[in-house]
Amino acid sequence: MLGLMQDWPLTVDKILDHANNWHPRQEIVTRSVEGPIVRTTYADAHDRAKRLSNVLKSLGVQPGDRVATLAWNTARHLETWYGIMGIGAVCHTLNPRLFPDQLCYIIGHAQDKVLFTDLTFVPLLARFREQMASVQHVVIMTDAEHMPDSIPGALCYETLLEQASADCEWGGFDENTAAGLCYTSGTTGNPKGVLYSHRSNFLHTLVTMTTDVMGIGGRDVILPIVPMFHANAWGIAFSGPAVGAKVVMPGMRLDGASVFELLESEQVTFSAAVPTVWQMLLNHLRETGARLSSLKRVVIGGAAVPEAILRAFQDDYGVEVSHAWGMTETSPLGTVGTPTAEVLRMSAEDQRRFQLKQGRPPLGIEMKLTDDEGRELPHDGKTYGRLKVKGPFVVREYFRGEGGDILDPQGFFDTGDVAVLDPQGYMQITDRSKDVIKSGGEWISSIEIENIAVGHPKAALAAVIGAAHPKWDERPVLLVKLKDGEAATRDDFLQYLEGKIAKWWMPDDVVFVEEIPLGATGKIDKKLIRERMKEYVLPTAAAARA
Amino acid sequence: MLGLMQDWPLTVDKILDHANNWHPRQEIVTRSVEGPIVRTTYADAHDRAKRLSNVLKSLGVQPGDRVATLAWNTARHLETWYGIMGIGAVCHTLNPRLFPDQLCYIIGHAQDKVLFTDLTFVPLLARFREQMASVQHVVIMTDAEHMPDSIPGALCYETLLEQASADCEWGGFDENTAAGLCYTSGTTGNPKGVLYSHRSNFLHTLVTMTTDVMGIGGRDVILPIVPMFHANAWGIAFSGPAVGAKVVMPGMRLDGASVFELLESEQVTFSAAVPTVWQMLLNHLRETGARLSSLKRVVIGGAAVPEAILRAFQDDYGVEVSHAWGMTETSPLGTVGTPTAEVLRMSAEDQRRFQLKQGRPPLGIEMKLTDDEGRELPHDGKTYGRLKVKGPFVVREYFRGEGGDILDPQGFFDTGDVAVLDPQGYMQITDRSKDVIKSGGEWISSIEIENIAVGHPKAALAAVIGAAHPKWDERPVLLVKLKDGEAATRDDFLQYLEGKIAKWWMPDDVVFVEEIPLGATGKIDKKLIRERMKEYVLPTAAAARA
Ligand SMILES: Nc1ncnc2c1ncn2[C@@H]1O[C@H](COP(=O)(O)OP(=O)(O)OP(=O)(O)O)[C@@H](O)[C@H]1O
Ligand SMILES: Nc1ncnc2c1ncn2[C@@H]1O[C@H](COP(=O)(O)OP(=O)(O)OP(=O)(O)O)[C@@H](O)[C@H]1O
Ligand SMILES: [Mg+2]
Ligand SMILES: [Mg+2]
Repeated sequence: MLGLMQDWPLTVDKILDHANNWHPRQEIVTRSVEGPIVRTTYADAHDRAKRLSNVLKSLGVQPGDRVATLAWNTARHLETWYGIMGIGAVCHTLNPRLFPDQLCYIIGHAQDKVLFTDLTFVPLLARFREQMASVQHVVIMTDAEHMPDSIPGALCYETLLEQASADCEWGGFDENTAAGLCYTSGTTGNPKGVLYSHRSNFLHTLVTMTTDVMGIGGRDVILPIVPMFHANAWGIAFSGPAVGAKVVMPGMRLDGASVFELLESEQVTFSAAVPTVWQMLLNHLRETGARLSSLKRVVIGGAAVPEAILRAFQDDYGVEVSHAWGMTETSPLGTVGTPTAEVLRMSAEDQRRFQLKQGRPPLGIEMKLTDDEGRELPHDGKTYGRLKVKGPFVVREYFRGEGGDILDPQGFFDTGDVAVLDPQGYMQITDRSKDVIKSGGEWISSIEIENIAVGHPKAALAAVIGAAHPKWDERPVLLVKLKDGEAATRDDFLQYLEGKIAKWWMPDDVVFVEEIPLGATGKIDKKLIRERMKEYVLPTAAAARA
Repeated sequence: MLGLMQDWPLTVDKILDHANNWHPRQEIVTRSVEGPIVRTTYADAHDRAKRLSNVLKSLGVQPGDRVATLAWNTARHLETWYGIMGIGAVCHTLNPRLFPDQLCYIIGHAQDKVLFTDLTFVPLLARFREQMASVQHVVIMTDAEHMPDSIPGALCYETLLEQASADCEWGGFDENTAAGLCYTSGTTGNPKGVLYSHRSNFLHTLVTMTTDVMGIGGRDVILPIVPMFHANAWGIAFSGPAVGAKVVMPGMRLDGASVFELLESEQVTFSAAVPTVWQMLLNHLRETGARLSSLKRVVIGGAAVPEAILRAFQDDYGVEVSHAWGMTETSPLGTVGTPTAEVLRMSAEDQRRFQLKQGRPPLGIEMKLTDDEGRELPHDGKTYGRLKVKGPFVVREYFRGEGGDILDPQGFFDTGDVAVLDPQGYMQITDRSKDVIKSGGEWISSIEIENIAVGHPKAALAAVIGAAHPKWDERPVLLVKLKDGEAATRDDFLQYLEGKIAKWWMPDDVVFVEEIPLGATGKIDKKLIRERMKEYVLPTAAAARA
């Protein structure tokens, strides 16, 4: 027997409709790419997004067509986003930090038909326009006055909007219709496309709006520093309008001084970003002695939160920190570390230990840990395993079938991360499964050794990879890039590690390098390191073989 | 083009699974019907709910069958609820405050197959068991020791559970499958059945978990005083486990002293109930001089919040009040009055004015105001209209087609309430559409006059209805039940109203009565009043005719 409740498809156009109906005067503040601070409202955004839908239609965009954005967080980007999705087209957010050839590959793979871009990227596009064969129109997100002429045939955003009608029907399609497309960062291989549906985005939005996840409300002033091209700005481009919060868009300037200026001038209460951005802000605060007068909470994710950042926010500036983990494939929220009642009864030091873990899954994320054979592992806080997830905003398959069948027999997606789960329900990432070192049947976390090694006063960067060993299969080897002008020996580093990691985790060798390669989004590129170390033979392996 | 995210049906069994997986040791505390406080956990509840599913199967319950509960808020009721829904049967919560003939009517209408009940209702059932022909089994929610023998063939809950296996598959069906059945209170006519689906309950749960709605989290200790038979305890029987909060179940004792005892002994932070329950608590606090040491927030709904209750909670006890409006047909949440940034910038007095309104719709509730012809009315804070709603947890049609087609051409459900919407997005209920008085083409709110009239020091109860008038169609007449031993005249009341309401709202007559009839759930029964006043003729009408 079926229930008798209404059929109301979960489509994201309803989110901006809601903001327009119930919070029309609420502000969207943008540090524009042209320079000045620009103030609009949800009513403006709604009107302009509708116009944008008509612009797209007049450019020949059909439901299902991919429309790309190569843009910073601005009100225009937000309008474009809803304008695309509202008519059933697919908003493909491009990460400008990718290398140009990666960008061209992704645009071709996605077959983007129209590309919206900020002034910042005009030089780049002027150079690579030819290699984007699928792209029929480039729209520059600026006004006539600032319109460049270096891209032949490029269209002016404001001019198009002015000429378009604000009357356009949104939605009316299946909630499983594709809404967004985002490629993974390409850290472990070629970027893969994740095709979000209206339903998955809508449900992700509701989940992030819950108190224990992002917990934002209409009283918050929200600064999404995490870019809209980074997996939906962690959902904030949806949840902000959904709660009717004032949203502050930082545009292209994410340095400490610029972020600080917006935090204070707009009296921001909530923000979200990766650790490196927060590090820039904290450095700025320390250098200037400035204080934060309104900021209450920050969500930090995308990479593990360093303890120093956690302490600085909480102890020095009274800002609450939520550590989150996620990935493009999970829309992106997977876990968040809001403390449980049980954790809150612990000592401050113990609580901090939990905050440094990646957090707990909310309702809507099923999570398990398995060994290589798919057998479930205990939540004992010690056993490492493959982290697998399932849920209504988790990927089922990659765009264009890339990678084939990616779910296990129970329907779980293997995240590619290695983790432990503890009895309090907290997950802690210990490595990537491609990077974990399998020594004598046991797993060694490359990340854990790296994190300690980089604490050595002479180290600028550190990376650990597994090197083949005849007896143990693999043994860790530590690569170190020293700080400018420093000198050190193998033993300096091995002694530094002693007592800080298990004995059998101790690297078999230390290799000093000129460069530790980073990927487009700043993560250590271990596939390139492994490539470069192809010929390397462990001294212990040579000895064992001899 | 469809998205490529996972198909993960929104079924409510996943909520208790989630609590069991991630918050197994979290407590459920019950004031048991037998007397003592009983402590269980989500792990216990999960295990016992699974057993209950097997009990139902062994009693012949099939997917789609209705299983009734006539029970207080207890851990057993919670287990039963998930045990029923988990296997695709329909949990039909019965309101014990209904009159026995209403109960028998509803049970017959729903064709309930099994009935779970508390010891409290055994005498009632013993008397009316014969009239519940569809009911094949009665299960008494107690243990062998307390098992009564007055209902032939009745089964003992704990004995059944002990004998059952805890191994049972849940879910695996369409998310639109019926999960729950709840009848309206019967205030304006016969109670009508609303058949919730898993999807509607799941989405309602996510929406109530958002910060601006109920905003509960895993750190809260939640006391759902609002009964599970009152539209899903406003969703708390779902949202509590969903966030892993400690839940305190008050059982049958809802008087001020009992509620206070639980608030303090369990250090409750959040609770929800109708105004009359809060009035009992506040009376108790005033009489004893007691203070509230842990309570932070209360949601009040089901009837308008009197200003005195709002002031007492906020000013005297430092407890934040959220005013909510809803109905059985909306699962039940329709609006909630969490202040917006705009309202928070107002003076304390102005803020209070907004708190007394019924609130704003969250994402997931579309809301409009129309005139009798369905034309949309402005959100100007003045214009009265029919309140209509639409959304994924709003009724599409009543159980067994009662009342026929209940949606307007745009798919909105007419709530039967008359309201105004203001420019800040707040909705304020002014009347029921069946009770509103149509005088010379304009609407007069019966409730508003009643609320003022009942403030007269001599009045115990007041009701206003429309009486036929040859010129004006209808004119208001005020019925007053005086306090014991009081005497008053028509003019006493008219003078009292003067200046407090518009001149043309002034009742044409005042009728003193011995009784103002109340419905089963304590609301004024205007259909009975109108029935009793059938022969009544307004003096002004007589005059106009003469
Ligand atoms: N809080 C966190 N702590 C540690 N690692 C994190 C955290 N949040 C995210 N990550 C890492 O980032 C990954 C998700 O990143 P993203 O989806 O941007 O692409 P990627 O995995 O780096 O690239 P690709 O999948 O193409 O190799 C996670 O799988 C995890 O390894
Ligand atoms: N905060 C509130 N303020 C004023 N009225 C409220 C509030 N909350 C609920 N109500 C009233 O309660 C009604 C919903 O009650 P419920 O669904 O229990 O049945 P009922 O409407 O009383 O009965 P029936 O529909 O059978 O006549 C709403 O339509 C509204 O009239
Ligand atoms: Mg990845
Ligand atoms: Mg009703």
